[in-house]
Amino acid sequence: MDPSSLIGAVSIFTAGLTIAIGSIGPALGEARAAAQALAAIAQQPDESNTITRTLFVSLAMIESTAIYCFVVAMILIFANPFWGAIREQAGG
Amino acid sequence: MDPSSLIGAVSIFTAGLTIAIGSIGPALGEARAAAQALAAIAQQPDESNTITRTLFVSLAMIESTAIYCFVVAMILIFANPFWGAIREQAGG
Amino acid sequence: MDPSSLIGAVSIFTAGLTIAIGSIGPALGEARAAAQALAAIAQQPDESNTITRTLFVSLAMIESTAIYCFVVAMILIFANPFWGAIREQAGG
Amino acid sequence: MDPSSLIGAVSIFTAGLTIAIGSIGPALGEARAAAQALAAIAQQPDESNTITRTLFVSLAMIESTAIYCFVVAMILIFANPFWGAIREQAGG
Amino acid sequence: MDPSSLIGAVSIFTAGLTIAIGSIGPALGEARAAAQALAAIAQQPDESNTITRTLFVSLAMIESTAIYCFVVAMILIFANPFWGAIREQAGG
Amino acid sequence: MDPSSLIGAVSIFTAGLTIAIGSIGPALGEARAAAQALAAIAQQPDESNTITRTLFVSLAMIESTAIYCFVVAMILIFANPFWGAIREQAGG
Amino acid sequence: MDPSSLIGAVSIFTAGLTIAIGSIGPALGEARAAAQALAAIAQQPDESNTITRTLFVSLAMIESTAIYCFVVAMILIFANPFWGAIREQAGG
Amino acid sequence: MDPSSLIGAVSIFTAGLTIAIGSIGPALGEARAAAQALAAIAQQPDESNTITRTLFVSLAMIESTAIYCFVVAMILIFANPFWGAIREQAGG
Amino acid sequence: MDPSSLIGAVSIFTAGLTIAIGSIGPALGEARAAAQALAAIAQQPDESNTITRTLFVSLAMIESTAIYCFVVAMILIFANPFWGAIREQAGG
Amino acid sequence: MDPSSLIGAVSIFTAGLTIAIGSIGPALGEARAAAQALAAIAQQPDESNTITRTLFVSLAMIESTAIYCFVVAMILIFANPFWGAIREQAGG
Amino acid sequence: MDPSSLIGAVSIFTAGLTIAIGSIGPALGEARAAAQALAAIAQQPDESNTITRTLFVSLAMIESTAIYCFVVAMILIFANPFWGAIREQAGG
Amino acid sequence: MDPSSLIGAVSIFTAGLTIAIGSIGPALGEARAAAQALAAIAQQPDESNTITRTLFVSLAMIESTAIYCFVVAMILIFANPFWGAIREQAGG
Amino acid sequence: MDPSSLIGAVSIFTAGLTIAIGSIGPALGEARAAAQALAAIAQQPDESNTITRTLFVSLAMIESTAIYCFVVAMILIFANPFWGAIREQAGG
Amino acid sequence: MDPSSLIGAVSIFTAGLTIAIGSIGPALGEARAAAQALAAIAQQPDESNTITRTLFVSLAMIESTAIYCFVVAMILIFANPFWGAIREQAGG
Repeated sequence: MDPSSLIGAVSIFTAGLTIAIGSIGPALGEARAAAQALAAIAQQPDESNTITRTLFVSLAMIESTAIYCFVVAMILIFANPFWGAIREQAGG
Repeated sequence: MDPSSLIGAVSIFTAGLTIAIGSIGPALGEARAAAQALAAIAQQPDESNTITRTLFVSLAMIESTAIYCFVVAMILIFANPFWGAIREQAGG
Repeated sequence: MDPSSLIGAVSIFTAGLTIAIGSIGPALGEARAAAQALAAIAQQPDESNTITRTLFVSLAMIESTAIYCFVVAMILIFANPFWGAIREQAGG
Repeated sequence: MDPSSLIGAVSIFTAGLTIAIGSIGPALGEARAAAQALAAIAQQPDESNTITRTLFVSLAMIESTAIYCFVVAMILIFANPFWGAIREQAGG
Repeated sequence: MDPSSLIGAVSIFTAGLTIAIGSIGPALGEARAAAQALAAIAQQPDESNTITRTLFVSLAMIESTAIYCFVVAMILIFANPFWGAIREQAGG
Repeated sequence: MDPSSLIGAVSIFTAGLTIAIGSIGPALGEARAAAQALAAIAQQPDESNTITRTLFVSLAMIESTAIYCFVVAMILIFANPFWGAIREQAGG
Repeated sequence: MDPSSLIGAVSIFTAGLTIAIGSIGPALGEARAAAQALAAIAQQPDESNTITRTLFVSLAMIESTAIYCFVVAMILIFANPFWGAIREQAGG
Repeated sequence: MDPSSLIGAVSIFTAGLTIAIGSIGPALGEARAAAQALAAIAQQPDESNTITRTLFVSLAMIESTAIYCFVVAMILIFANPFWGAIREQAGG
Repeated sequence: MDPSSLIGAVSIFTAGLTIAIGSIGPALGEARAAAQALAAIAQQPDESNTITRTLFVSLAMIESTAIYCFVVAMILIFANPFWGAIREQAGG
Repeated sequence: MDPSSLIGAVSIFTAGLTIAIGSIGPALGEARAAAQALAAIAQQPDESNTITRTLFVSLAMIESTAIYCFVVAMILIFANPFWGAIREQAGG
Repeated sequence: MDPSSLIGAVSIFTAGLTIAIGSIGPALGEARAAAQALAAIAQQPDESNTITRTLFVSLAMIESTAIYCFVVAMILIFANPFWGAIREQAGG
Repeated sequence: MDPSSLIGAVSIFTAGLTIAIGSIGPALGEARAAAQALAAIAQQPDESNTITRTLFVSLAMIESTAIYCFVVAMILIFANPFWGAIREQAGG
Repeated sequence: MDPSSLIGAVSIFTAGLTIAIGSIGPALGEARAAAQALAAIAQQPDESNTITRTLFVSLAMIESTAIYCFVVAMILIFANPFWGAIREQAGG
Repeated sequence: MDPSSLIGAVSIFTAGLTIAIGSIGPALGEARAAAQALAAIAQQPDESNTITRTLFVSLAMIESTAIYCFVVAMILIFANPFWGAIREQAGG
């Protein structure tokens, strides 16, 4: 197994796994916050503005962890420094 | 095991695993939000517009994590840079 | 193990695993949404139209993740680019 | 291990695993929806028509994910393109 | 390990595993539906006809996933196309 | 490892595993249905006939999945077609 | 590893595993049914005859799955057809 | 690894595992039944005779699964037919 | 790996594992029964004699499964028939 | 790997694992009993003597399973008969 | 497998795993805090300022653990001292 | 792998694992007892002395299982009889 | 695999795993404490000072376990004594 | 793999794992105690002194298990007797 294909295979597997595992927490978390927001609106319709605003801030915070995972997956696929070094070495 | 088939096999396996694992969280999450929205409508029929609107924004946020996984799976199958490099190297 | 049979075996295994794992989340999710809709109808029969409509939109969103998995499984079995390339290489 | 028996073994194992894992979610999901429908009928006997109709639509949606798995398992056993190609190659 | 015994061993193991795993979901699911039906009868004895009818339709739907698994297990033991091809090849 | 002992060992292991795993779901499921029936009798003693009848039908449905597993285990031990073919081949 | 000791070792391991795993479900299930029966007696002392009778029928049904496992374990230890065939072959 | 030590090692490991795993279910199950009996006595002190009698029958049923495991473990250690055959063969 | 050290190593590992796994169920089970007894005493101080007596009988039943495991562990360490046979064989 | 170091390594690993796994059940169990005792004291301060006495008996029973594990771990480290036999053999 | 590709492969895999696993806890945790904040606002609209402020401090604390993971992942990809040393050694 | 490094490596790994796993149960258990004590104080402030005293006795009992693990870990690192014997043998 | 790359690879993997696993507990724990604090403020707005102060002390205690993990991860990456010794040995 | 690098690699991996696993229990446990303390303050503001004092004693007890893990991790990294002996041996 040459270095180039090893690094490639590991990068592909890790990128997929990262975004796959990393999407479980945010998806369930956003659902929990949204569900509670819907319950809160049903209970206090007059506060729907405050509730919606707090919900959106919270969703943004939770989505941020999914975005960290997506960024790492994209770096591993399209801007992988190890792959670059290995290719350069192979081509050098 | 030659580099080409290794990269191919890993890409296939990762693409399938990514979308499979990545669909669990969003599916359960969207169900939770939708279930709570239905309960909220039953409790406060007069607020069904606000509830439905908040639900759709939330579903879009949750669906986004499933879409990240689908995008990564599609990139791995149809626009895989490692596969391109390996094929080029084999053909060069 | 020649490249052709490796790619074939991995494709078969991944296709099956993808749709198998990918059907757990949507099945449980749709059940949750449907169960809550039935409870909501029992609680507010007058709102059954709004409830049913919201339910169907939600089921469609949840089903979409199962369909992503089914699409990936079908691509892996019937339109697999890696298999095509390997067969072409073997036949070339 | 010759290619033919490898593909055969993997197809058999995957077909069984796919339908086995794929039956867990729908079975539990349909049970949940059905249980809630029975509770709803007991609570609102007058709405039993609406409830039964919504239940059947929901069961059909949930059953669809089990059917995806069954279709994939049947394809792997009786219409497997990889097996066809390997047999043809062996016989060619 | 000759092809014939490999295919045989995999078929045996998969058949057993398929029906074993595939019986967990339906057994628990049918129990849930039945338990709720019993509770509903205790709560609304006058609706026991509607409840029993809905229960039987639901049990049939849930049992169907167990039957898919049983069918696949029987096919693998008694009508396995891969075993047929391997035996024919060995005997040819 | 000769084919005969391989098939034998796999058959033994699978038969045991099948009935062991396959007994978990039905045992828990029957317990759930029975527990709810007992609660229903305590709540509505006048309906004990309807409840008992519905319970027995449900237990029969749930037991059926355990019986599928037992049948498969018995086939693997006493009427195994793969073992027959291997023995015949060895003796032929 | 000669066939005789392989079959012996697998039989021993499977027999133990079968009864060990197979005792979890029935033990928990019988406990659940019994606990509910005790609660039902405390709630409706006048129906203790009906409750006890239904309990014993249910315990018998649940115990049956443990007995399937015990029977398979005993067959594997004392009436194992594969062991018989291997011993006969070795002695023949 | 000679046959004798293989059979010995597998017997030891299986005996321990059988009783270890097999004690989890009965211990938890008996605890559940006993806890409910204690609650029932506190709720209906006048029925303590009926409750205690039902409890002891139930404990005996649940204990029986632990005893099946203990019997199998003892057979594997002190009356193992496979060990006897192997020793006889070695000494013959 | 000579037979003597193999049997020794397996005996040590199994003895430890048996008592370790075997202590989880009884510890949790006794705690559950004791907790319920304490709650029952707080609810019905006048029945503390009956409750305490039933508790002690139940604790003895539950402790018995832990004692089975301890007995097997002690047999494996200090009165192991396989070890005796192997030592005798080595010394013979 | 000589017999002496094999037995030593297995003894060390087993001793640690035994007490580590064996401490989970008693710790959680004692906590449950203690928590319930505290709740019972808060509910019935006049019965604190009976409650405390029952609590201490229960804690002793639960602690006994942890002590079984500790005893086995100590035997494996400081009074291991297998280690003694192996050392004697090596030195003999 | 040369040192350079080993370090590269491990770094890639660890970076992805770190951020993937590390995003589960914070995502679920932030969702819990946010959901409770929404419920609190619905219950006490007059305290929405105090609630929002406490929520943001808590979200920052929880987000900090996700950021630790992101920092470690970035260090492993872009400022890895082991990779630097290995490359220097290889180039030296 | 020489005996000395094998024993050393196993001792290190076991010591860490023992205290790591062994701290989960006591930490959660002490938390449960403490949480219930706090709730009991809030409910019956007049009994805070009895509650606190019972809490401290319980914490000591629960902590004892963590201390068993710590003692075993320390023995394995600093007073390991197997390591002593191996070193002596190597140096002898 | 030379010592240097082995130590490097293990250090990288361990550092990532440590902070990843170590962030789950604190994130969920801080969320629980914060959620309860928010609920307490909504219930007793007048005690918000005491509640907030107790919350911050608790968050600091919980965060401390995350910081232990971060410290260990940083030591493993930037101040690893084993890496230092190995490099020195290689360079000496 | 020379002894020195084996001991080093095992020490690094164990140190990280110890503190990572060991932080889960205390973090969740402290959170539970703190959450209950906050609820108790909201319920009985007048007892906030007793509650806070009991909370701090409990947190100290729970934190002690995390500190055991941290101490073991630090010993393994900076004061490892096995590493010392191996280095001395290598240098001697």
